[in-house]
Amino acid sequence: MSLETVSENRSFGGTQGVYRHKSQATGTDMTFAVYLPPAAEDGLVPVLWYLSGLTCTHENAMTKAGAQQWAAESGIGLIFPDTSPRGEGVPDDDAYDLGQGAGFYVDATQDPWKKNFQMWHYVTHELPELVFDNFQLDREAQGITGHSMGGHGALTIAMTFPDRYRSVSAFAPIANPSQSDWGRKQLTAYLGGDESAWAAHDSTLLMREKGYKGEILIDQGTDDQFLELLKPEALAQAMVARRQPGMFRMQPGYDHSYFFVQSFMGEHVLWHAERLY
Amino acid sequence: MSLETVSENRSFGGTQGVYRHKSQATGTDMTFAVYLPPAAEDGLVPVLWYLSGLTCTHENAMTKAGAQQWAAESGIGLIFPDTSPRGEGVPDDDAYDLGQGAGFYVDATQDPWKKNFQMWHYVTHELPELVFDNFQLDREAQGITGHSMGGHGALTIAMTFPDRYRSVSAFAPIANPSQSDWGRKQLTAYLGGDESAWAAHDSTLLMREKGYKGEILIDQGTDDQFLELLKPEALAQAMVARRQPGMFRMQPGYDHSYFFVQSFMGEHVLWHAERLY
Repeated sequence: MSLETVSENRSFGGTQGVYRHKSQATGTDMTFAVYLPPAAEDGLVPVLWYLSGLTCTHENAMTKAGAQQWAAESGIGLIFPDTSPRGEGVPDDDAYDLGQGAGFYVDATQDPWKKNFQMWHYVTHELPELVFDNFQLDREAQGITGHSMGGHGALTIAMTFPDRYRSVSAFAPIANPSQSDWGRKQLTAYLGGDESAWAAHDSTLLMREKGYKGEILIDQGTDDQFLELLKPEALAQAMVARRQPGMFRMQPGYDHSYFFVQSFMGEHVLWHAERLY
Repeated sequence: MSLETVSENRSFGGTQGVYRHKSQATGTDMTFAVYLPPAAEDGLVPVLWYLSGLTCTHENAMTKAGAQQWAAESGIGLIFPDTSPRGEGVPDDDAYDLGQGAGFYVDATQDPWKKNFQMWHYVTHELPELVFDNFQLDREAQGITGHSMGGHGALTIAMTFPDRYRSVSAFAPIANPSQSDWGRKQLTAYLGGDESAWAAHDSTLLMREKGYKGEILIDQGTDDQFLELLKPEALAQAMVARRQPGMFRMQPGYDHSYFFVQSFMGEHVLWHAERLY
């Protein structure tokens, strides 16, 4: 697979790159970002996947989450995928929370979405092949995190592939989408009305069913303007009921913005680094 | 003067706010951002002014420079002014480097700019009065920094008011605008063709004439795509010729982007904190 370099910038002694490739999964060009820390000059480094939220591209977290500083310090690579296929000919919806920018990290089975919206396969199979073939990143040392819709993606992916993702965390994840307006609409559109197909994409249901073999770190702001849609209490209850190792932290005064993500990014990167090195 | 709160977000235990007010200096509404660290809950804190570059608003550095983390840690407030007046009825130019977004931190004396483009007075007099009246910031402990056009502003302002700004630094400043296409056009437009009026707004000329009473910290990327316009060598030469205390650091591989600014922001904030506390 060929890879086009969109940009590369020096950042904290490493390189923040943006790349484009033709995706077979989505049938479109896809753009993603990779941060390589200075340690990548000497060999493979562990890698942390960061999945973004609704309306985001690869760029939001790359410019606003402040992760590079910590990745440089702890010798961790970062990957920032896009949140959906894009472009002319790709289906979309007028709502910000469906279609382009809102792939929800599932493989759509329904028209008109199924032709392009294969974000689960893209993030868990196609993009990993590409990045491990092209960058100094260690496929044996992967962690995953994300914000909001991306926190949903990180948790569901890690619980599905626990042997592949050795660490997982999330910032204000959409925690129980099958019971939320951030979920029911999208899962119906992408996967159809049979709710049994949704269970693989609901962190709370996955937590009840099987949990995660390692520790989980979740941060959630108490002043998040989307608490009713995120439903953190459902996941927190499932974690405690299961005795899931890890931490669910309510952070006083924080909202849903990148100011929140940035404030705790250092702790998340270090959390992953401890488990990946 | 009345102050409208546009937004407030929790950030690293402090508050990142955005505010709007009617400016007498510019005759327009002006928007600016203030970060208050946790220490501001207990009393006045020192403050670092951050002046932004061409095309920026108050928002770019607030979201991308990564300064809040360090400001929180060292107990420093941050102020991010806009780079020009804006809005309908305010003169503008098709070029990105003249008019709105490109105030150059001067008080225009020429038509059509002089009615609104009074950014020197705004940043050094009107906005300070407003922020020191309204926030827990210590007017006796001010430092100033900036990027590109904002580095130009920071250096010229600090050398003009050395008793007011106890510390100064800059990221890739426009260092010799009277000899650059980033400068000659704008100084002609705003101040007229008599170059003697420009001298107060050229860091290299001010350095030759009087320097700065404290130490100066300047970072400049070696791979900056605008080196020909920034003219760092002119300022570096003037600093050494004058035996100006401080550091002019060429940072290998860095360009002009916020990835560069972010990479050294921690050192700059700590540099100011050492001199303000």
